[in-house]
Amino acid sequence: MTWVPIDLNADLGEGFGRWTLTDDEQLLSVVTSANVACGFHAGDAATMRRVCELAAARGVRIGAQVSYRDLAGFGRRAMDVPAAELAAEVAYQIGALEVFARAAGSRVSYVKPHGALYNRVVRDVEQAAAVVDGVLLADRTLPVLGLPGSRLHEAAAAAGLPVVAEAFGDRAYRADGSLLPRGQEGAVVTDPDEVVERAVSMARFGVVTAHCGSSVAVRARSLCLHGDTPGAVGLARRVRERLEASGVRVEAFA
Amino acid sequence: MTWVPIDLNADLGEGFGRWTLTDDEQLLSVVTSANVACGFHAGDAATMRRVCELAAARGVRIGAQVSYRDLAGFGRRAMDVPAAELAAEVAYQIGALEVFARAAGSRVSYVKPHGALYNRVVRDVEQAAAVVDGVLLADRTLPVLGLPGSRLHEAAAAAGLPVVAEAFGDRAYRADGSLLPRGQEGAVVTDPDEVVERAVSMARFGVVTAHCGSSVAVRARSLCLHGDTPGAVGLARRVRERLEASGVRVEAFA
Amino acid sequence: MTWVPIDLNADLGEGFGRWTLTDDEQLLSVVTSANVACGFHAGDAATMRRVCELAAARGVRIGAQVSYRDLAGFGRRAMDVPAAELAAEVAYQIGALEVFARAAGSRVSYVKPHGALYNRVVRDVEQAAAVVDGVLLADRTLPVLGLPGSRLHEAAAAAGLPVVAEAFGDRAYRADGSLLPRGQEGAVVTDPDEVVERAVSMARFGVVTAHCGSSVAVRARSLCLHGDTPGAVGLARRVRERLEASGVRVEAFA
Amino acid sequence: MTWVPIDLNADLGEGFGRWTLTDDEQLLSVVTSANVACGFHAGDAATMRRVCELAAARGVRIGAQVSYRDLAGFGRRAMDVPAAELAAEVAYQIGALEVFARAAGSRVSYVKPHGALYNRVVRDVEQAAAVVDGVLLADRTLPVLGLPGSRLHEAAAAAGLPVVAEAFGDRAYRADGSLLPRGQEGAVVTDPDEVVERAVSMARFGVVTAHCGSSVAVRARSLCLHGDTPGAVGLARRVRERLEASGVRVEAFA
Repeated sequence: MTWVPIDLNADLGEGFGRWTLTDDEQLLSVVTSANVACGFHAGDAATMRRVCELAAARGVRIGAQVSYRDLAGFGRRAMDVPAAELAAEVAYQIGALEVFARAAGSRVSYVKPHGALYNRVVRDVEQAAAVVDGVLLADRTLPVLGLPGSRLHEAAAAAGLPVVAEAFGDRAYRADGSLLPRGQEGAVVTDPDEVVERAVSMARFGVVTAHCGSSVAVRARSLCLHGDTPGAVGLARRVRERLEASGVRVEAFA
Repeated sequence: MTWVPIDLNADLGEGFGRWTLTDDEQLLSVVTSANVACGFHAGDAATMRRVCELAAARGVRIGAQVSYRDLAGFGRRAMDVPAAELAAEVAYQIGALEVFARAAGSRVSYVKPHGALYNRVVRDVEQAAAVVDGVLLADRTLPVLGLPGSRLHEAAAAAGLPVVAEAFGDRAYRADGSLLPRGQEGAVVTDPDEVVERAVSMARFGVVTAHCGSSVAVRARSLCLHGDTPGAVGLARRVRERLEASGVRVEAFA
Repeated sequence: MTWVPIDLNADLGEGFGRWTLTDDEQLLSVVTSANVACGFHAGDAATMRRVCELAAARGVRIGAQVSYRDLAGFGRRAMDVPAAELAAEVAYQIGALEVFARAAGSRVSYVKPHGALYNRVVRDVEQAAAVVDGVLLADRTLPVLGLPGSRLHEAAAAAGLPVVAEAFGDRAYRADGSLLPRGQEGAVVTDPDEVVERAVSMARFGVVTAHCGSSVAVRARSLCLHGDTPGAVGLARRVRERLEASGVRVEAFA
Repeated sequence: MTWVPIDLNADLGEGFGRWTLTDDEQLLSVVTSANVACGFHAGDAATMRRVCELAAARGVRIGAQVSYRDLAGFGRRAMDVPAAELAAEVAYQIGALEVFARAAGSRVSYVKPHGALYNRVVRDVEQAAAVVDGVLLADRTLPVLGLPGSRLHEAAAAAGLPVVAEAFGDRAYRADGSLLPRGQEGAVVTDPDEVVERAVSMARFGVVTAHCGSSVAVRARSLCLHGDTPGAVGLARRVRERLEASGVRVEAFA
């Protein structure tokens, strides 16, 4: 029996100037892919540089975590940005990060939308196409990390971009494989043991228990770990250890 | 008798969102080098994309016009930015612009500081070094356009970067070749005929009449034309026509 | 026969730093109410001060034109701002403007949402309530200028705030009195003569010809004039002259 | 023997959106004056509202902590802001905070510059005058909290504004009563016992040991406590307890 290898991704560099949020050094010892904030929802230039240097030194893959332009709302407020503006803003962010990735001897090797933009492009065809246009402007070979079945993944695949499916150990799924929306009762799994168990189940068997109690197939090449809460690093480390103890190969996607 | 060819550069894309400032299309029919605003003092992503497309289509060279992060002050207020932050911010801006230059089939082929940063690095050794560090982070071969004799040019040359000297047809010079500071009486030459005459004199003979009345040598490979005032485009066009009529070859630097 | 007096309002102070947009001095010679931008979509502090001084000197009423926080999008992109944040941001803007109004010997005497927020609170109950909460935080007596029948006006009236209805001479109406959405064919009336005629018809008789050709009642205490297009000031002046020549009393609301 | 009462002030509300910095609730149980960030270096509108409510509920005086417009640099980078802009920006910030102070049943009752602006107006006559102009625009009776002998205090006093002198328990003084500049060896006192002892000495006897070892008179009506470092709240509490145990009356200035 062989299993697909699993990538572990987390958001990094989400401070801004005087403010810090994510424990970048610790998270970089756990994940295989770093979603680096590019200055639109978080992430000043000096932080981007430092995170890229740390990631490159540890062999962690660097991805552009692109967002709406919204520091005050941390990119968590959906915005009706016209497609041409959004595409250009996505490209701008990728380009800015690329400088620091290359200076550190690495490169931007994937793109993942952040926050409200991530959620919006699950269903919004126009903004999904705009994000893909932005990626194409920057680099016609960049994989797009996101929710399987999302409009974003459809648009990316249609444009010839590689897509990488991700899953969440700490989010509840519905029987159809979609995420139970935040705000609904039980949407976020808070028990650490349960998070670990769900992560292993998804990575090893491609299934997880849905909110309604049935089993649902969730096939993903990457697991998203959250890094902005107390105890996040400890939990991430436990997930990784249990994955490896279960025979799962923790490895970045190609 | 042979003369050095002369490059004509101007600031472009200095709008932001709803606001416009420079007549980019008209200026691109005159200049050989476009200093494109990169989002820190002006220049949103969609404007950057459009200006790069227009410049590439006309064969105009694209340069990164890097600035302090100061939209409210249009980059015209000197700031004590620590060197590490400033270097990273310069690299960030170059990287962001590079995406649009490349997507348009061109590339960022030089760097020029804007406004208060331009003036600061004439004398400030630390910030001059920080700008050079930022350029090196992005691309170790990029020419730096600026004032001959400035700390910026010294630091760039010491780091192995090519330097390109520029001169101003509409600014008064002192007998030692430095610019009469703005704010002083007569610092800006406003008579169009005089601007044209001075531009031709500098391009053709490498001399100009200093504020005190004597002649001063001003050898420059590029002339800076201002584009943000009424009549600017017309004046720029006259300068170019008179240069060409005088046998000067208007041509971008290598 | 007596007619209601009519107020003329326009957006002012919509520049930012180096950028200008509205011809504030000229518009202030036409309108009776100035919707002053408060720094979130446009309007830096120095501009706010100057516009308040000019308005006070001419006896023009000062209103707070509150917006989403979105300089890059000029407040024209709908945003899912949580109610508590939006209420606080509205109050913040009113308070900031109040300083300059008072320093000029006047005061903020009404509130009008700008752009995407204006459109959003026509239907969005939650954001309408948030705007009203923000107004109440700042001043429990401030009139709210907006579209009659909007959720904003309902929420304001329910909270005990005065509401003032406005109409648009340059927008097409549907038979039910609602505006034909921008983007639809014919939504904006561009012929100056027609704009003038419609403004007079609404001010004098409370009716206008709807898009479908029938007559529709549009009763408003204020007419909105747009000031950010070429020719806007001239058109605004013509509207005012024709109103006065038709016996309409141009006068700010109480 | 009677002593002057002493006020304790600290910077509060210095988060922004998703980011937090100061432990506002805890600090409000220690200080008598809260320097509330007004959105230019930190402090979003919702945070300002919350801090004002907490301060008012505890009877803590609310002051406007005004700053350069510089979120990326946390207001710690000196900026050459023209006087007219700076004055307007100071007034803008005071007005915005006043809304929340009044809504909470309190009012803005003093002004204190933050960070680089605080340091700049110790010596810079033009910016000191601009800050005072901004205060006058907002309220001609507001006390200005700052360094005794600073250009700011001179300008404020000359304009008829009350001035309140502050001292720092955790900063080294020179024999002439000025602060040893940060960056110099020993500029910041890090030993908690020493901070407490120096605070009591200044509050009770108006003297402190200077860096060179001699005694220097430091008469202040307010002591500044720092709240943005780990252990800051505990240290602040110890200072207050020791002051009270030494017979000093901890009390806001009039």
